[in-house]
Amino acid sequence: MEKMLATIITIGDELLIGQTVDTNSAWIAQELNKAGIWVHRRVAVGDDRDAIWSALDEESKHAPIILITGGLGPTADDITKPLLCEYFGGKLVVDQKTLEHVYYLFEKVFRRPGPMLERNLKQAEVPDVCTVLFNRVGTAPGMWFEKNGVVFVSMPGVPQEMKGLMTNEVLPRLKTRFTAPAIEHRTVFTIGAGESYIAERLTQFEAQLPSNMKLAYLPSYGMVRLRLTGTSSDPVALKKSIDDQFATLCSKVEDVTVVTEDLTMEEYIARLLRESGKTVATAESCTGGTIAQMLTSIPGSSAFFKGSVISYAVSVKESVLGVPGSLIESEGVVSEAVVTQMLKGVLDQIDADYAIATSGVMGPDGGTEAIPVGAAWIAVGSRERVRTKLVQFRYQRSLNTQLTAINALNQLRLFIKGAPAE
Amino acid sequence: MEKMLATIITIGDELLIGQTVDTNSAWIAQELNKAGIWVHRRVAVGDDRDAIWSALDEESKHAPIILITGGLGPTADDITKPLLCEYFGGKLVVDQKTLEHVYYLFEKVFRRPGPMLERNLKQAEVPDVCTVLFNRVGTAPGMWFEKNGVVFVSMPGVPQEMKGLMTNEVLPRLKTRFTAPAIEHRTVFTIGAGESYIAERLTQFEAQLPSNMKLAYLPSYGMVRLRLTGTSSDPVALKKSIDDQFATLCSKVEDVTVVTEDLTMEEYIARLLRESGKTVATAESCTGGTIAQMLTSIPGSSAFFKGSVISYAVSVKESVLGVPGSLIESEGVVSEAVVTQMLKGVLDQIDADYAIATSGVMGPDGGTEAIPVGAAWIAVGSRERVRTKLVQFRYQRSLNTQLTAINALNQLRLFIKGAPAE
Repeated sequence: MEKMLATIITIGDELLIGQTVDTNSAWIAQELNKAGIWVHRRVAVGDDRDAIWSALDEESKHAPIILITGGLGPTADDITKPLLCEYFGGKLVVDQKTLEHVYYLFEKVFRRPGPMLERNLKQAEVPDVCTVLFNRVGTAPGMWFEKNGVVFVSMPGVPQEMKGLMTNEVLPRLKTRFTAPAIEHRTVFTIGAGESYIAERLTQFEAQLPSNMKLAYLPSYGMVRLRLTGTSSDPVALKKSIDDQFATLCSKVEDVTVVTEDLTMEEYIARLLRESGKTVATAESCTGGTIAQMLTSIPGSSAFFKGSVISYAVSVKESVLGVPGSLIESEGVVSEAVVTQMLKGVLDQIDADYAIATSGVMGPDGGTEAIPVGAAWIAVGSRERVRTKLVQFRYQRSLNTQLTAINALNQLRLFIKGAPAE
Repeated sequence: MEKMLATIITIGDELLIGQTVDTNSAWIAQELNKAGIWVHRRVAVGDDRDAIWSALDEESKHAPIILITGGLGPTADDITKPLLCEYFGGKLVVDQKTLEHVYYLFEKVFRRPGPMLERNLKQAEVPDVCTVLFNRVGTAPGMWFEKNGVVFVSMPGVPQEMKGLMTNEVLPRLKTRFTAPAIEHRTVFTIGAGESYIAERLTQFEAQLPSNMKLAYLPSYGMVRLRLTGTSSDPVALKKSIDDQFATLCSKVEDVTVVTEDLTMEEYIARLLRESGKTVATAESCTGGTIAQMLTSIPGSSAFFKGSVISYAVSVKESVLGVPGSLIESEGVVSEAVVTQMLKGVLDQIDADYAIATSGVMGPDGGTEAIPVGAAWIAVGSRERVRTKLVQFRYQRSLNTQLTAINALNQLRLFIKGAPAE
C-alpha cells in the first residue's frame, strides 16, 4: 500500500526573518503520522502573493493533502484569504456562525472595551467555495477546499487555534476522505551512549528490518530516542511484526535504556515517584530553577514535587540551606562537599523523601582552571544516603544548564533504581 | 536594488515526523537578515534521494544562495554526502585536516573509550569538488559548492555545529561573494494592547511607509514586538529614514511601550536591576521556578538575582516562607493575602531588594468556581511596599504558566518604574 502523502505550507514573513520558530509543523506532522499520513515536504513562504500562489501550484503536484497555516490574522495584510478565494474561484461572503462567534469572543471572552473593529469583523468573511471549519478558540475560521482531487486546508497560525481545528475538524475529515495505511511507532529512550555507538551496535538489526519499517535516531541533550516506525495495509500483522522487531531492538540497548516508551526524562521521573508514593525537593544553584520548572511542567506534579530553594547567591546557601561559610571557603562553592550540604539543607527545610542539588559554572564567564565553564557538581539522595557526580560540558550557557538539569534527573533515577554510583 | 535571496533546505525524516522542532532555520534566517540576505523560502525534505535531488534543482531556480542543513550525521544513512558528490560531479576523498580533527575530538574532547568507528572516520570524507569548511566543534565538515552561479552550502544539523560554521565560515564568505543591499531593523517592544488594536492605530502609519520599508507584528505571550525593516543600496540614507519612521512609530505606541529595543522581558528586567544596583528574589508556587529560570538564563545574573523559594506544597509556604496556616485556611492558598505573605516571607529569608510571588491554578485540574484554571495572584514589591494583581488566563498548563511568569515580571517592571497599580 502506497504511503498517503501530505505537504505543510506555512505562510508568514515572521518565519522567514527568523523571528518565530515554527512549532506548528512538528505538531501537525506528529498528528498526521498517528493517522497514517506521511509529511512529504514542508515549505515556508512569506506574505507574498506570487510565492503563496506558486507554492499551492507546486505542492499540489506532489501530495493529495495540503495543509496551510498562517496568513489569516487581523494584521496579515489581507493577502491569503482573497488569494485563496481567487485560486479556488469563489467570492468572499460573511459566514453567519463565525460572525456570531467573533462577537461572542470579543464581548464575553476577551472582554475588549470599545466597539468592534472592522478588521475583526472581516475575520468572518470566507470564500463561498470552501467548507468552513469552526474555530472555537479564535476569530479566524479554518477553510477546506478541494481542487482536482487535492484537499487544501487553510488554518490560522496561532498554535492554540490550529491545534483545535486539527483535532476537532481536520483530522476526522481526513480520515473519512482518505484511506491511509496503518502506522505504528515504538520508541525506546536511552541515555549514556552516543548516537554513533548505538548505530554501530544496531547495524545488523537495521539491515534485517523489513522494507515497511524504519529506525530513526533522535538525539537530544545526551539522550537518544530510537523510534521504530512501520506501515502496512494490515494493522494486525503490523502490530505483531513491529512488536517482535521492537523486542529485538530493546534487547540490544538494554544497558543504556531508561524506559521502552516515548517519555521525557521528567515524565519518567514523575512516574517513578508516583508509583512509589515518594516526593522530591531541589536545591539549585547553577540550574537556577530549571529542574523545578521541568518537574512542575507535569500536570499534577504537586503529588510528587514539594518545592525548592534556588540558592543562586552564596549568602542564600548559608542562610537558607545552612551550608557553613567555612566549608564554602575551604572547598569552594562548586564542590562535592557544598553540593552535599545543600542537599541536606533543603531536606531540613522541606519535608520531601528525595532531593537534588546542583552547583556549577554555566558560563560564559566565571570559569577557572580548576572549575572551568560547563562544570557542575550534582548531588541526589535522601536523608540516609547521598550520591554525587561531577559533570563537565563544553557548550553555551543554556545548553550547559539543560544538560546539567537532565543529568541531575538521571542521577535521581539511578538512585531510586538502586544503581551503584559510577 | 534587488533583494538578495536565499533558500534554506533542511534534510531529515525527524523534521517530517515531527520529532524535532526546526530551530536552525529561524537562527539562520536572522543571521542572513542581518547580512542583508532575505530568506525567500524554507523547504524541509526527508532522508530520501529523489526528494533531496529535486529540492536542489527546484530551489536553485529561485535563489542564488541555497543553505542546506542536516543529513550529515554518522547515522544519517549516508544519503546526503554521496548525493551531493554526484549532483556536483565529484568523487569522495579524505580531507586530512578533518580526519585529524575527528581523531582529536574523539581522543581529547569526547574521551570515548575503545577504537574509532569506521562510520566516524567516514565523517572526514568530502566531495573533491567542494571547498571544505572547517567545523571546530563537530566531526562533520561544512561543504561549499557552486553550480551555474548558485552557491550551495551543506552543514550538519546539530545546532552548535551549524552555528559555528555559519559564523566562522559561511557568513564571511557570502559577504565576499555577493553584494547585498544594506538592511536595517528597529524594534519596539509593547505589552498590554492586542495586535489588532495596535494595527488599528497604525493604519495610516503603515500606509505612508516608503516601499523599501515594512512593519511586522510579532506577538508572543501577550507582548507584541513591532519590527520595522528597511532595505536600500544607500546605507546612510537608510539609517536616517528608518530612524525618522521609527520615531513616529514609537510616538504612536508610547503608552504600551516597554522599551524601544529588541529585548526579551527578562533581558529588560535584568537591565533595570543592573542600572539601579538592585537585586530580586522570587517566591513561586504556580510558576514552579519558571521566573527564576528566566532570570538566571541571563549571563551574569548573579549580579541581580539572589535566589528563590519554590513553595509548591502548602507545607513549604508555611515552614519556609512563614505564611500562617490560619491565613491559608481562611483566605485560600490562591489569594491576595497569601501571595503578599509569600513575598514578605521570601524577603525575610533572602536578602534582596525586590521580590516576586505567585500562587495560582495552572491546570488542567484543580480549578474551582471561585479560582478557575488559569487564575493566579501575583505580588511584587519591596520590604516597604507591595503591589498585587489577579490574572486570569484560559489556556493549557504550559501557556498559563508562561503568561503568569511574564505578567509577574511586567508587574515588577511597573513597580520599579513607579507606575501606579491598576
